[in-house]
Amino acid sequence: MRTMEWEDNRLKLIDQTKLPDELTYVYCENYHEVIVAIRDMIVRGAPAIGVAAGFGMALAYLDGEDLDKAADEIKAARPTAINLFWAVDRVLGSDNPLDEALKMYQEDIDTNMAIGKYGAEVIDDGDTVLTHCNAGALACVDYGTALGVFRAARDAGKSINVICDETRPRGQGASLSVWEMQQENIPVKLIPDVASGFLMSQGKIDKVVIGADRIAKGGVVNKIGSFMVAMAAKQHDVPFYVAAPLSTFDFDASIFDTVIEERDGDEVRYYGGARICPEGTEVINPAFDITPSEFITGIITENGIIDPI
Amino acid sequence: MRTMEWEDNRLKLIDQTKLPDELTYVYCENYHEVIVAIRDMIVRGAPAIGVAAGFGMALAYLDGEDLDKAADEIKAARPTAINLFWAVDRVLGSDNPLDEALKMYQEDIDTNMAIGKYGAEVIDDGDTVLTHCNAGALACVDYGTALGVFRAARDAGKSINVICDETRPRGQGASLSVWEMQQENIPVKLIPDVASGFLMSQGKIDKVVIGADRIAKGGVVNKIGSFMVAMAAKQHDVPFYVAAPLSTFDFDASIFDTVIEERDGDEVRYYGGARICPEGTEVINPAFDITPSEFITGIITENGIIDPI
Repeated sequence: MRTMEWEDNRLKLIDQTKLPDELTYVYCENYHEVIVAIRDMIVRGAPAIGVAAGFGMALAYLDGEDLDKAADEIKAARPTAINLFWAVDRVLGSDNPLDEALKMYQEDIDTNMAIGKYGAEVIDDGDTVLTHCNAGALACVDYGTALGVFRAARDAGKSINVICDETRPRGQGASLSVWEMQQENIPVKLIPDVASGFLMSQGKIDKVVIGADRIAKGGVVNKIGSFMVAMAAKQHDVPFYVAAPLSTFDFDASIFDTVIEERDGDEVRYYGGARICPEGTEVINPAFDITPSEFITGIITENGIIDPI
Repeated sequence: MRTMEWEDNRLKLIDQTKLPDELTYVYCENYHEVIVAIRDMIVRGAPAIGVAAGFGMALAYLDGEDLDKAADEIKAARPTAINLFWAVDRVLGSDNPLDEALKMYQEDIDTNMAIGKYGAEVIDDGDTVLTHCNAGALACVDYGTALGVFRAARDAGKSINVICDETRPRGQGASLSVWEMQQENIPVKLIPDVASGFLMSQGKIDKVVIGADRIAKGGVVNKIGSFMVAMAAKQHDVPFYVAAPLSTFDFDASIFDTVIEERDGDEVRYYGGARICPEGTEVINPAFDITPSEFITGIITENGIIDPI
């Protein structure tokens, strides 16, 4: 399952806002449409955003646009994902933006396969593993980071059970991760985000594997709620792994300086089209949180498992 | 705002499944209808369930039913709330079930006012306080336990800001606690359950006050998710209070022997009428969790603030 493909000089994207009920596609014919797709989360997940942004730069190049201007606009689509900045700058500095974007596309697939290979080693036969949000094929070009680890463990002959956090407010765990695991015939159960601590206290979760939107000195930025899972895991001695490509790392910055995107309160007020609170209720809706390094057992990268930085 | 009233030999209940959009009432004319109201969460919250169960016993008495049989059936409506057992046994052992139920009704109001008075002392002027689920007037006959503390703090002239956890899967924080605070003109904001840990790490939550469904040796049983809030609070040195009447205590039992109710998976699969995951997704949906005593700063009762048992 490819989250995106380059077809007839257009970027073809699975429309992730329509999953799991409909598998449909959106075609971006210019870089402005790529920005809309990133901002509205038609494409989401740090690695996928990076590669889509690379194709956005390629489209700007093919259309003869001002590449510096396009770069600035694409980077502003979502302020937290480091892969977005990394990918835009890499394409901007290349001789042929389209070739560079296509190279990043293939590298992303290779990287995830390598992450899966290393990650599978920490999964034991019979494990029940928890993940939060969707660090799956849908968050990448293909295969996935956290869910790639589960795929690789299964391919290595290990029997695993996956538990997916719902991941309010947007429910990517319920709508995307559950769906991906079902497509693979990997046994999967859905829980409300509030339940993982209780299940850990009952000894029902053996390991946690999540993705990352940014890794820097002091910890990991990932989907809001990751930190609460990490605190529960530490309390119950459940190993807590982050699976992410090296492009997610910012070795020079402190994680605590990350700008945390605050998203529209309607994401919380409405769910499945229905309002869940009184009209006009004030909302706080941070998209990410910061898990300090002390809560992280290891970071699974394409070069092996490393300590948090 | 009275959650229930005894009117013309019937039990009148606010239909909490219709809030916050409609304030409507359900009338129970016999004890079977009280069981349905408890099971379907038309009335919910440990103290309110207790008093409603008492009126259920009164209805069985007025109808000349077998009271032992009625007691067993009412107790089975929801297996975790200790107030339910306590109230049914108290009415069963009385000379006049209706008088006893009416006495419990008035006692519940008096108890909550006393809890509020003691609880207000731990709230400082300018505090931002977090609560989970609805331990409000709607969880009692009137006034509330955790939200009663906030009402009392406001009435004592303190300026407070309340943050309500949404409280998946049923969203009682979003639909009930937010609504109650808005009715009182107490400033209130809604957050997804996943966000409280991050807000604590940013210093944006000064105290937590929640209710309880059962308190016994070793800790407190409350709505699923309370334990995750407690772990986050301990990590950030945020005081974590439980507000509950003494009828919630079982001094002889271990909290770890509590039967945790597992509710229908459709509560997770559907929200606001919409399915949020692939059809037929397997779900784990525990209704409560256990917060061990070491995470609890104090328990606010009608006799003062005490240590966990």
